[in-house]
Amino acid sequence: MKAKELEQLLHKEIPISQAMGIEVEHLEKNTISIKAPFEKNKNIHNTAFAGSIYTTATLAGWSLLTNLLRENNLTGSVVLAKAEIRYLRPINSDIVANATLNNLTEIERLVSDQSSHPRLKIEQRIDLVEKNIIKAKMIAKFAIV
Amino acid sequence: MKAKELEQLLHKEIPISQAMGIEVEHLEKNTISIKAPFEKNKNIHNTAFAGSIYTTATLAGWSLLTNLLRENNLTGSVVLAKAEIRYLRPINSDIVANATLNNLTEIERLVSDQSSHPRLKIEQRIDLVEKNIIKAKMIAKFAIV
Repeated sequence: MKAKELEQLLHKEIPISQAMGIEVEHLEKNTISIKAPFEKNKNIHNTAFAGSIYTTATLAGWSLLTNLLRENNLTGSVVLAKAEIRYLRPINSDIVANATLNNLTEIERLVSDQSSHPRLKIEQRIDLVEKNIIKAKMIAKFAIV
Repeated sequence: MKAKELEQLLHKEIPISQAMGIEVEHLEKNTISIKAPFEKNKNIHNTAFAGSIYTTATLAGWSLLTNLLRENNLTGSVVLAKAEIRYLRPINSDIVANATLNNLTEIERLVSDQSSHPRLKIEQRIDLVEKNIIKAKMIAKFAIV
């Protein structure tokens, strides 16, 4: 998929992503960057809302794996099983979530051989970054079913 | 606060909670129930969206502690430091998050004596429930600053 195509998919299929104003900034087979604009995603302290930070991160992780399946012409679905997030410092502007599949070759091998892994789990680390500083860190475990 | 007052506070100060259609169903000093309607919070699989499930849970936890501070005439702010969520089964209708402070007396003592605890952390368990079945479980650590 192209970034714009993914963005339209998210807005169509996950209505709250449209309400959040989610933008797919960058998409390659092994890396993604997703943004949520500040004004729609702020909290009572006038910093980025913890729920929106989490959601932007999960959308990045989910999208990267969903794109990988599509690029490999596979039909599986990506489902979030578990996630942990640590908020290190407040985010004072747009929320940006970056995810990278460092072990792309291994993951492609696993997802291409799903019959051997009926409930394959893939762990991803997703960073929330503002001005090159990591403001929050997520570890998410996705299942491909 | 009354449930409706809290709901209005959330909608005003956290715009995405309004976009999600968050409703405060029940609020007492030691217990809360918050709902997010299905249609606004569904995903590509036509089940409840993982990001909305997480956000509804954190709003329940945050609101319960924020209400406790207000009821005790305290000025501190509640900030989410860390959270972990496990999705056990899909949610097929409205998202409902329930939180209870079992150790209310102890927490009231701690928050009332904030000068001794400049960065007090309180851990809460929040359940996501559908038809009396727990569908997801969150453990959230809030800081009172």
